[in-house]
Amino acid sequence: MRITPKADYPLVETRRILEPGPVVLVTSAHLGERNIMTMGWHMMLGFSPALFACYIWPGNHSHELIKRSGECVVNVPTKALLEQVVGIGNSSGSEIDKFSAFGLTAQSAEKVAAPLIGECHANFECRLADASQIARYDLFIWEIVKAHVAIEPACPETLHYMGQGDFMVAGKVVTRRRRFKPQNL
Amino acid sequence: MRITPKADYPLVETRRILEPGPVVLVTSAHLGERNIMTMGWHMMLGFSPALFACYIWPGNHSHELIKRSGECVVNVPTKALLEQVVGIGNSSGSEIDKFSAFGLTAQSAEKVAAPLIGECHANFECRLADASQIARYDLFIWEIVKAHVAIEPACPETLHYMGQGDFMVAGKVVTRRRRFKPQNL
Repeated sequence: MRITPKADYPLVETRRILEPGPVVLVTSAHLGERNIMTMGWHMMLGFSPALFACYIWPGNHSHELIKRSGECVVNVPTKALLEQVVGIGNSSGSEIDKFSAFGLTAQSAEKVAAPLIGECHANFECRLADASQIARYDLFIWEIVKAHVAIEPACPETLHYMGQGDFMVAGKVVTRRRRFKPQNL
Repeated sequence: MRITPKADYPLVETRRILEPGPVVLVTSAHLGERNIMTMGWHMMLGFSPALFACYIWPGNHSHELIKRSGECVVNVPTKALLEQVVGIGNSSGSEIDKFSAFGLTAQSAEKVAAPLIGECHANFECRLADASQIARYDLFIWEIVKAHVAIEPACPETLHYMGQGDFMVAGKVVTRRRRFKPQNL
């Protein structure tokens, strides 16, 4: 595993990485504690501001850290991190420090206290934009305030969780750009 | 293109198909009118009841049909339907009937008036469960009330939209089932 060199990324382009539906690693920090959780239930909700919604099960140790701090980082792992993703999803931050346990590098974020995972393909720093749907649906609505994306590859081998321990690994990219109306791209 | 033979599918297993994040074709019907739209901003929101959330841009002709009928069908296309997906996303139901224009077969749903697309891998019949977030976010929260899924293949080549006219085609599936705790599958 290596730390991927990254560049700032335009927030309005966030959908290029999150819309295809990868499983993500959500990092949080609150009152000296930090954690990482896996998450597969999420969606884009706006271009500008870059809004993003996700479901966080209250049984997750991260739920309270995230709710209380009102911040998180959404990190996008690739196939190279498959074993870490599985390990993170099957352990609890109440028992171990997942950064140490899984050999991941915590880097400082720019706008939030939650750490970035250096080895991931992309990191999206998020501030809670709307807490009104947490009580009913455990649905958090975020504004992405800073994006860091690996310089290469352009088409990362993201992991897409299917339940039952199965992951679909991102395949080839095909383009039909010429068949799109500009306003529909 | 062929109509895929399908079987009833357990609603609690819906996440196996929607969680990986495929672009979907949403069908609607209202007062004798029907339509199809493409959609990439969606997420699972519950197992049982099977809740599902999605963003529908108000500029879409389908927005009103869906809001007024309170129903839709979420259809999951595969690579074999790539040209139809692009065509549907770049035309308007105010000008053409998309079923005829793109050679797709409208089948009767069981619990909603909106039609199923016979050629898709899966069809999820949805009833609007919560309209409270439409005004603010164009966010529709659905209960999936009936699921039809193709008997094969087990791992369909779904399309995952990346913006800019690019689609990631679902790649290989890897399993780590043995490394999961049963409650985390």
